[in-house]
Amino acid sequence: MHRMIATSFRTVPPFARGLVRDLRLRWAAREVGQPYEIAFIGFDERTSPEYLKRHPFAQVPAAEIDGESMFESGAILYAMGLRSQRLMPKDDNKRLQILSWMFAALNTVEPPILTLFSLDILNPDPDRPADFRDITVATIRTRLSRLADALQGRDYLMGAFSIADIVMTTTLRFLRHTDLVAEQPAVAEYLTRCEARPAFAGALAEQQGDYAEADALAA
Amino acid sequence: MHRMIATSFRTVPPFARGLVRDLRLRWAAREVGQPYEIAFIGFDERTSPEYLKRHPFAQVPAAEIDGESMFESGAILYAMGLRSQRLMPKDDNKRLQILSWMFAALNTVEPPILTLFSLDILNPDPDRPADFRDITVATIRTRLSRLADALQGRDYLMGAFSIADIVMTTTLRFLRHTDLVAEQPAVAEYLTRCEARPAFAGALAEQQGDYAEADALAA
Repeated sequence: MHRMIATSFRTVPPFARGLVRDLRLRWAAREVGQPYEIAFIGFDERTSPEYLKRHPFAQVPAAEIDGESMFESGAILYAMGLRSQRLMPKDDNKRLQILSWMFAALNTVEPPILTLFSLDILNPDPDRPADFRDITVATIRTRLSRLADALQGRDYLMGAFSIADIVMTTTLRFLRHTDLVAEQPAVAEYLTRCEARPAFAGALAEQQGDYAEADALAA
Repeated sequence: MHRMIATSFRTVPPFARGLVRDLRLRWAAREVGQPYEIAFIGFDERTSPEYLKRHPFAQVPAAEIDGESMFESGAILYAMGLRSQRLMPKDDNKRLQILSWMFAALNTVEPPILTLFSLDILNPDPDRPADFRDITVATIRTRLSRLADALQGRDYLMGAFSIADIVMTTTLRFLRHTDLVAEQPAVAEYLTRCEARPAFAGALAEQQGDYAEADALAA
């Protein structure tokens, strides 16, 4: 077992619950029974000089594994994958395939999804013309359709479950306010399959419970 | 020396020149004197069944190194980094720091920059209200300001040059139609320093030359 500490916001508003990226690490750790400690920070603490040393962009999660510090959920998952073959096989070529899928999820699939999330959820404005939203949705539709094609005949991106699925699942969840995933049955089934994993359910329940506890203490 | 083949579009419109991501691989290869072969594809070929097997999202670059195939520039750079200490040190902790910076560049810095690029360059509309553009620019300003802080006292993200700088530089270049980088002198100096590397200049000139050659043949 390794010693692992990951940062998490003590609490977040309802629109962000179930989407904050420390969920990715809690899920990965639970897949392999790796114990972990959560270091909670208040939202305002993220820009403190101390926290910026852990994460230069003032986000969560940052993490320390066996005393080595890193930031960005993709990098932390990769570090966890190096330590367990249930998250990432030892084969060098497969590792590069997993990294290909992780970068595809975070740099090809996620950016237009984040734009839509910003338009609809973070910065809604009923008076804004729909044109740019329509353009964004069209891009997302194309990417999800290609993802559906790639998933043909496979349960998971690499065949067997890996950290690439943790990244892709949690990326797709940013579309939960839309029907875009439902439009692509192969993607919808994939998302359901990933979210049905006990480690995901456990991680989500724990994260929600942590917010509830912090809210109760603050009330 | 390894055997490396990377895909590139035969030609692209002026607004995309100097931004297409195979530039990242040409640059990395030139930093270490690694020979490479470019496999050109026409823009329409990107969605052919054959090409989708190389890149499920129909983008460039995809690559093959010593017979192993991968896609997404981040993953391919990492594979190149594993093969040369001039691109990435052998130390495991430093590798995870580099991966942290690569994911930060591609999943934290680049997404709002791509949104701005889409609003201004890919889908300009003089009648569109400025509100969402203003929100996007504010996010970019915050991220660049944190990047400026992180660069204090360092020439490169990790001190010494690495693949993380290749990713960050080519991400910042998507802002070339704005003054946003110039607003942050530390970031502007960093970008100038990276772009002054002979391997970058050589890669850019070669990519531009390849487009010119294809255009001349098609004329």
